[in-house]
Amino acid sequence: MRNIKLLIEYDGTNYAGWQRQKNAISLQQTLENSIKSITGEKIEATGCSRTDSGVHAKGFVCNFYTCSTIPEDKYREAINSKLPQDIIVLKSEEVVQDFHARYSCVGKTYSYTVLNREVGSALMRNTAYHYKYKLDMESMRRGAEHIIGTHDFSAFRNLGSSVKTTVRTVTKLDLQREGQCIKFLVSADGFLYNMVRIIVGTLLQVGIGKISSEEVKFILESGDRSFAGPSVPPQGLCLEEVNYNI
Amino acid sequence: MRNIKLLIEYDGTNYAGWQRQKNAISLQQTLENSIKSITGEKIEATGCSRTDSGVHAKGFVCNFYTCSTIPEDKYREAINSKLPQDIIVLKSEEVVQDFHARYSCVGKTYSYTVLNREVGSALMRNTAYHYKYKLDMESMRRGAEHIIGTHDFSAFRNLGSSVKTTVRTVTKLDLQREGQCIKFLVSADGFLYNMVRIIVGTLLQVGIGKISSEEVKFILESGDRSFAGPSVPPQGLCLEEVNYNI
Repeated sequence: MRNIKLLIEYDGTNYAGWQRQKNAISLQQTLENSIKSITGEKIEATGCSRTDSGVHAKGFVCNFYTCSTIPEDKYREAINSKLPQDIIVLKSEEVVQDFHARYSCVGKTYSYTVLNREVGSALMRNTAYHYKYKLDMESMRRGAEHIIGTHDFSAFRNLGSSVKTTVRTVTKLDLQREGQCIKFLVSADGFLYNMVRIIVGTLLQVGIGKISSEEVKFILESGDRSFAGPSVPPQGLCLEEVNYNI
Repeated sequence: MRNIKLLIEYDGTNYAGWQRQKNAISLQQTLENSIKSITGEKIEATGCSRTDSGVHAKGFVCNFYTCSTIPEDKYREAINSKLPQDIIVLKSEEVVQDFHARYSCVGKTYSYTVLNREVGSALMRNTAYHYKYKLDMESMRRGAEHIIGTHDFSAFRNLGSSVKTTVRTVTKLDLQREGQCIKFLVSADGFLYNMVRIIVGTLLQVGIGKISSEEVKFILESGDRSFAGPSVPPQGLCLEEVNYNI
């Protein structure tokens, strides 16, 4: 069996997230069906992470095993010809047998986009979170500095999946203003459930002065979810990049 | 009767353009119905231009006359509460009686977004035109210089609406690379039917070397539509701003 790795972009608006589900259309199922119609095999696609409903990806990675003899780079076009327009394979390649989209992953980068103006947006309604209050970028950046590093992120996760450890290393947390938007870029070796959305929700509270930038440190140390800010909605979140050593 | 001016943003994907039509859902009709459900009056909204199906706007302007006594700035929220999410009123204000969204207009700016990479995009499928060939930005910029100024733009229009004159003044034609996208910004005192889309289509031909940048001048002087490039598709086009002296 050959092991094929796919790099995928998707608009998550119309899907119930990555993971196959009984009563809703998932990205995994849609992709697997498209692959099946190419190779004739019933395959299982292993994703790099479970993304929630409404979350997008510019660089999602998955892999699947196949007996098909299609040249590695030709899967891209073949699968794209069967996929709906809101999912697209950007790259296909054959990888070593033990490459696993989730277990082989050593890091990920997510972006979160906040539209920061008085009125919402029709064009960005599915790709940004509208937040109308004035934000102090400098306070948010100072708050963000406490997040960077290796910490127990228990205060920044929602329950929903079991993990062995709640310690993660955030290597980057950048905030940039781009026109009327604020873009958060977060890189880590791994993320807990809703971790990015709670980090952003907490930093927005810092931005409006409800939480001081110094308090972010204490929230982190408390390990208490109730001290952190709310999870911001899914549509602002996008999986930008997944890293592998393999 | 009061004259109310609205500044509107919309995602044109699911509409048959601005103008009311018999067998398709238009932006005009959708907006007029929302206003009617607020004021109780059957009104007619006058748009600054007819945008084609699939074309977007961040700063479309229209006006309507009403007997309603709602404070001028409150129309925004009231109408938004009735509109679908792909149309949003950004601003509402009362203007002088003879303000007319189309006739009072002295200039407009459109953007056109080209996604210039090998594979298309799921997230930008409705807001950019995917063009995979390598483009020479400098040639395109030199070609664009010939477009700027006052010219007869007969070679850069499709038939579809009658006009008194085909002379227009293009005051700005900028090309910028933004990541994997190329953004065209075009300002003029007015535009002929499909003019921006033909300008972009012609400059893309310059970018791949099918038309030289000097030839743009001759195409313009010829007044012959068949010499110019094709009209690029609607989804890359966005009405950014409309200017008034009134």
